[in-house]
This record gives sequence, C-alpha cells and structure tokens, in this order.
Amino acid sequence: MNAVDIINKTKNSVPLTDEEIKWLVRSYTNDEIPDYQMSAWLMAVCMKGLTEEETLALTYAMRDSGDILQLDVPMTADKHSTGGVGDKTTLIIGPAAAAAGVCMAKMSGRGLGHTGGTIDKLESISGFRTELPMEEFEAILRETNFSVISQSGNICPADKKIYALRNATGTVDSIPLICASIMSKKLATNADCLLLDVKCGSGAFMKTHEEAQKLAMLMEKIGNMAGKRCKAVVTDMNTPLGKNIGNALEVSEALEILRGNDKGSLYELCMQLTAEILVLADKGSYDECLAMAKESVSSGKALEIFRRTIELQGGDARICDDSSLLPQAKYCYEVRAARNMRILSMDSQALGMTSLLLGAGRLSKSDTIDMSAGIVMNCAPGDCMYEGDVIMTLYSSVISDFTETSVRALDALEYTDMPSGSEN
Amino acid sequence: MNAVDIINKTKNSVPLTDEEIKWLVRSYTNDEIPDYQMSAWLMAVCMKGLTEEETLALTYAMRDSGDILQLDVPMTADKHSTGGVGDKTTLIIGPAAAAAGVCMAKMSGRGLGHTGGTIDKLESISGFRTELPMEEFEAILRETNFSVISQSGNICPADKKIYALRNATGTVDSIPLICASIMSKKLATNADCLLLDVKCGSGAFMKTHEEAQKLAMLMEKIGNMAGKRCKAVVTDMNTPLGKNIGNALEVSEALEILRGNDKGSLYELCMQLTAEILVLADKGSYDECLAMAKESVSSGKALEIFRRTIELQGGDARICDDSSLLPQAKYCYEVRAARNMRILSMDSQALGMTSLLLGAGRLSKSDTIDMSAGIVMNCAPGDCMYEGDVIMTLYSSVISDFTETSVRALDALEYTDMPSGSEN
Repeated sequence: MNAVDIINKTKNSVPLTDEEIKWLVRSYTNDEIPDYQMSAWLMAVCMKGLTEEETLALTYAMRDSGDILQLDVPMTADKHSTGGVGDKTTLIIGPAAAAAGVCMAKMSGRGLGHTGGTIDKLESISGFRTELPMEEFEAILRETNFSVISQSGNICPADKKIYALRNATGTVDSIPLICASIMSKKLATNADCLLLDVKCGSGAFMKTHEEAQKLAMLMEKIGNMAGKRCKAVVTDMNTPLGKNIGNALEVSEALEILRGNDKGSLYELCMQLTAEILVLADKGSYDECLAMAKESVSSGKALEIFRRTIELQGGDARICDDSSLLPQAKYCYEVRAARNMRILSMDSQALGMTSLLLGAGRLSKSDTIDMSAGIVMNCAPGDCMYEGDVIMTLYSSVISDFTETSVRALDALEYTDMPSGSEN
Repeated sequence: MNAVDIINKTKNSVPLTDEEIKWLVRSYTNDEIPDYQMSAWLMAVCMKGLTEEETLALTYAMRDSGDILQLDVPMTADKHSTGGVGDKTTLIIGPAAAAAGVCMAKMSGRGLGHTGGTIDKLESISGFRTELPMEEFEAILRETNFSVISQSGNICPADKKIYALRNATGTVDSIPLICASIMSKKLATNADCLLLDVKCGSGAFMKTHEEAQKLAMLMEKIGNMAGKRCKAVVTDMNTPLGKNIGNALEVSEALEILRGNDKGSLYELCMQLTAEILVLADKGSYDECLAMAKESVSSGKALEIFRRTIELQGGDARICDDSSLLPQAKYCYEVRAARNMRILSMDSQALGMTSLLLGAGRLSKSDTIDMSAGIVMNCAPGDCMYEGDVIMTLYSSVISDFTETSVRALDALEYTDMPSGSEN
C-alpha cells in the first residue's frame, strides 16, 4: 500500500478497503506518512466524502490507536454534545440519569475557543479532581452511578494528531471526519448506551439543521454498527443554553435546576435528554422515562448524587446548598439598555467569545482560565427591554475595564428599537 | 493573509485575488507555509479548479519565483510537448523551422518515468553539451537559428517545489495546475512565439481528447493573456510517435527524416507542427508555411542546421551522415509472432515502461541512462504479422536477459489471432 494510491482512490470516489484505512491511520500515527500526504487525503475526504463503511473503518482505526476503556461496572451510559455556549447539560443529565438507575460514566474534555468544557466547569468547584485512577473512577460509579473524569492521555492518539492537522489545513468541516473523530473517542470510552446531542445554530459547529441532521444520523448509524445502543438528537444552539455562560456561573445554574428551583427551558431540555438515555438503558417508554427523570430532580435524589460525587472526587460539596461558595468574580458590569428595545436574536458564538475575553475560556491550550468569569443573560429573544434595564451582567476577576467586552456583548444581540414609552 | 483562509476559499469555490495567489506561492517557496497546507490547497484545486484569472495569476507567480530569460536575439519561437513515448519531434521541427527563418530557442527537460526527454536524447550524441552559458546559447542561435539547452537552475523554483509535492500527494492531474506549471516555465523562457503540443492517449498525461482539448485551450488562452503569440494543438499519443523508442534510436530516426529518407506519419506530423510555428512567426498562410517546412527538409537545409548546431554544442556531427556512430547496444532481442496475428492497438505507456526497463529511462532522478537502449517497432495498429515475423526489436547494453521485457513488450500489444495461413 502507498499513500498516493490511497489519496487518488478517495479523490476519484473509489471506496477504500478496511485494510487501507487501517494502514493509513496506523502509518500516519507512527509518523510513517508525512503530514502533507495526510492533509491531501483529508481534503479529498472533505470534497468527496466517505461511505458509511469507510467512516466506520476510520472510526475503528482511530479508536484502536490507543486504549479502550474496560470498566468493571455493569451497563454504562455516556452522553456527548458537539459543543456549544453555556452547555452545562452534563451536570444536570448525569446526576438525573444516575438517580434513575443508569450508570453515567463520562470522560470529558476541556474548552477551546468559544465553547466551554465540562472538565473546566467541574474544576471551578474547589478541590474537585478530574484526573482519577481507573479503580477510583469505577468505585465512584459503583457508589453513585455518576462520575466525570478528564480524557486520559492514551485515548485515540490518532484522532489527536489528525485533528490538529485538520485544524491547520481547512479540513475541519467534513461530516464523516467529524463523525469519526467523535465516535472513535466514544467507542474507546466504550459505554453501552450512547446519547449524542448534535448542537445546531450560530454557536455550534453545525450551522444548519440539514447538516446537523446528517451528522446525527451518521453518528447514530456508526454507533449502532459498532454494537452500541445509540441515539442522536439535534438540539438548538442559536441562543446560549440557559442564562449563564462561564465555568462557576454554569455550575451555579445547574445547581439551581438540580435543587428544583428552575423549571425553564434548560430544565425541560435536560429532562428530555435524560429520558432518551433511560430509554436506551431499557428503563421504559419515553413518557415513563421522562417522568422518572423529573422525579429524580423533584425528589432531590439527583442533587444528592451530585453532592456525593463531588465529595468522592475531593470537591467542596457545600456548594450544593450554597452556590456563593463557588468562585466569585472581583469585578462585574451591568450592560443596560440605552433605549427601549426588543431582542430579536443573540449570536451564541459572539457571546462565547466575549465570555472567553472576560477570562472564562482559552484561545490556546496553555491559557489559564478565570473560573469566576462569564456572563449572566437577563433576556431572551422576543423580550422587550426598557431604557436602563439590565440586559446582562459581565463578570471577571482578571478584567476590570469592561469597555471592549460590553461593546462586544451588545453587538452579539440583534434588536429593534421601540418608540420610547411604548408598551407594545 | 493566512493559509487556512486561502485553502477555505478555494475549497468553497471563492476565487482568490492575485495578491493572495502571489502571497501563497511566495510564502511556500520561501518555506513560510508548510507542505501540509500547500498540499491541502492543491487538493482543493484538483477538486474545485481555478478560474482563468487565478490560473494566470498562479502562472505569473511561479514564473516570477526565478529568472526570466532575456535573449539578445530577435523574435524567437519555442515548442512544448506535454510528453509522450518516442517523441523526437523537437529534433525535427527545431531544424526545419530554423531553416525556414525562425529562431528556435529551446530549453528542455530530462525524461522521467515512461516518457523521454529531449536533453537525454541529444546527450546520446557523443560530446554534445546541453549546459551552455547564455552568451554561447545566443551565439549559436544567431548563427544557426536552432539550439537546445537544459533548463537552468533558477527557472521557476516555485514550480519545482510545487511539482515535487504534487507528485507525492496525488495532485498531479489538475488541468489548471498542469497549465500553470507548463506555462510558468514557458513564460520564463520568454519566447515570442509558442507552439504547445498537447499529447492525448494511452501514453500521455491526458488520456481523453476532451481533457486534452481543455488543457490546450486553457494554455493557449493563458499564453495569449500573457502577450505571447501562442497556439495549442492536440496530437495523438495512443501509439508511440514513429518507430523508435530510446535515446540514440530516436536521434537516428529523426536523422532519417531530416535526410529525407522517411516520409511517414511522423514526418507529416512534424511538418504540420513546423508550419504552425511558421504561421505564428508571420511567415505566411498555413499552406505556404507547410510548403516551406517541407522545402526545409527536402533541400537538406534542416539537416545542415542540425549538423552545425551539433558541432557548435561540441557533439560528433558525423552522425548526420552515419547513424552507426551513435551508441550501439551490446545486446538485442527480436520479439517474434508466435502465431498469425492482427495488431489492434499498442499501449504507449507500457512500451515506454519496457524501454525504461531496458535501460533507456529513469525511475528516479538520480538513475543513469543507457543511451543505446530502447525498442524499434516493426508494426503499427492494423498490421498483420505472420508466425515468425519480427514484431519489434529490443536493445540494451545493460540487460542481456530479455525474458521479462519481451513478455512486457508483447503485453503492450492488443491483437486478434488469425487462422493459420490466412491472407486476410
């Protein structure tokens, strides 16, 4: 086999054999194929796509480049979101599904760019350890049914190398490549049930519903072909999820939902996604599972599970009763309406970038995060704000001058003026 | 500007500006853009193409990466062939056009793979020097109107680097890239008139007439946009050109035509191409120019010009009268018909590869060539060969066992059996 023949096949829409894909991934991971050949192949894939069989073979080849998790616990479930702004759903769905009897064993990543990462959010809890030995991870799962750790060093090294190259060569936006990248990591994590949440809209990688649907269907198919109980759903990311963006702020919002104090749209979404997981785990019909999910929260069981998991992972579990024990920002700034306005839409990606500039995110992997930083939105599309109303509040412990970030934050909103004093 | 944005534009069919293309080529040539980004861009070009304006900008950018020839001679003409098997047309057209009063200033390349190179063919003439100082090149042109030298070190370094990368990344077969590669070198050589001979068929880069026609039209357009008198023609390369393949063997065949002893199809083709050059140089109508071309040969003027050029470039000009002074092979092998057969077609590329294996070509740039090696065909498509007839003769000074090459040579022919003794 040689790389040029393989590139030419994909370029000419001739499907590769499983052996060719295995060879390509293994040779590239072992530095036997240079970056410039791999990038040419990746561009050919962006243009010509891959068949489902090729995508499965690529997923397997990347999965097999590193360790495959073998947890010593009965049936486990995992949830993956393609990333968004303000996405704290794992912190709600995890404990809720666990309370309903499903073992939620999750490996998560850190945030990069305008999207956050669950590991960063959890690390805003004082003392919380996200790097645990496997035995400890298993022990926590056996006791509470819920644990989240950061991805270990040797899960899918091939994906790491290929992803970095894609990022530098304009070959990120290919549905089969995105699918194989996500699914190889999920298959390496090796949960029995897998819920895939494909975010769609301005703050997500998939900008249109059609693209998101394609990715969802492909991932579900690949998951099922690989023998997993797998379901993919497309959810909206045109506005940030919930009200809070930023690590400690998002934990705080998740806690309000787990305490049963917030029954808004984020609560509803999380209950629906929890129900999907329960269905995958054979807990009953969708309606029965939705009721079980809500019962997990209303009974306080989900919060108790979150509390115990925080304790077992070394974190300060008192936050479950008192969110003020989470990191608090030194500075804050209220962005107010300069005149009467109606909010038409908000650009999640721009709000994610503003939050990053406040200190809540990273532009490069080595940047450190201000856990207290972020944004609390005080409005949603459709809302009318009157002159002087607080539209949102910006928080930071590293930035005290909000001149630039407040302009950016306002620019992220689309609105129409309303006549002064109008009640319309 | 950055490479990822440029890659994404081409990938999304957004035309690049002249400045972007200049920047890309300059940065890549200066090692400021890594191979893996350039190869991703090249693959995007293979898939999405380039506009004529982009192709012209790419041609200019590659031309401007090195020296541009400024010859101190009046109007010059150049001829380029996209490469084929047995293509010795330069050795005939050059002297014939020169004899008709056009200054043929040619820089040629060496052969690689199954196609030969004019420089290698000329170097089969004992003593012939192909690396000359510019002043000597000009002096020869002033005296004889005809000289061929090898490409100097600093013509289109960008093309050299990009071509090597294309070769390693499956991005060779793109019409705009092929066009820019050829035309950048031709514009750097800077002749006033330019005849482009696009070979089409099994032994050529362009396998179909449609592709060949596209490349021809694009090159002619780019040449004219660049202010050259430019004409592109498509000629057949389904069978090798003429009877002989291999360096000294091809010089010998060219001499037979220049001596007026061979008026076959190769002679006719060369006269037509010579006439096209004369037309470009304003020597008259096509019919007048065709008559002038034939007069160049029949009068012996073309042979005298070749003789004088060989002398001035240090070669043994006695070959003009006695081809046996060219390198002679130590070993030869007659491939005979095992039964009665009618030749249907021959695979030029396979015959080119057989000739290479006999020693006449190179697989890699550092390989040395056996000048005496090659094939003399004794048949053409349509011919009937009877049991025991010599179909072709293989020559080599480095290989004495013709077992493999004779099988390969026969495999290159397509034929039907004829009933024994049939005269049909």
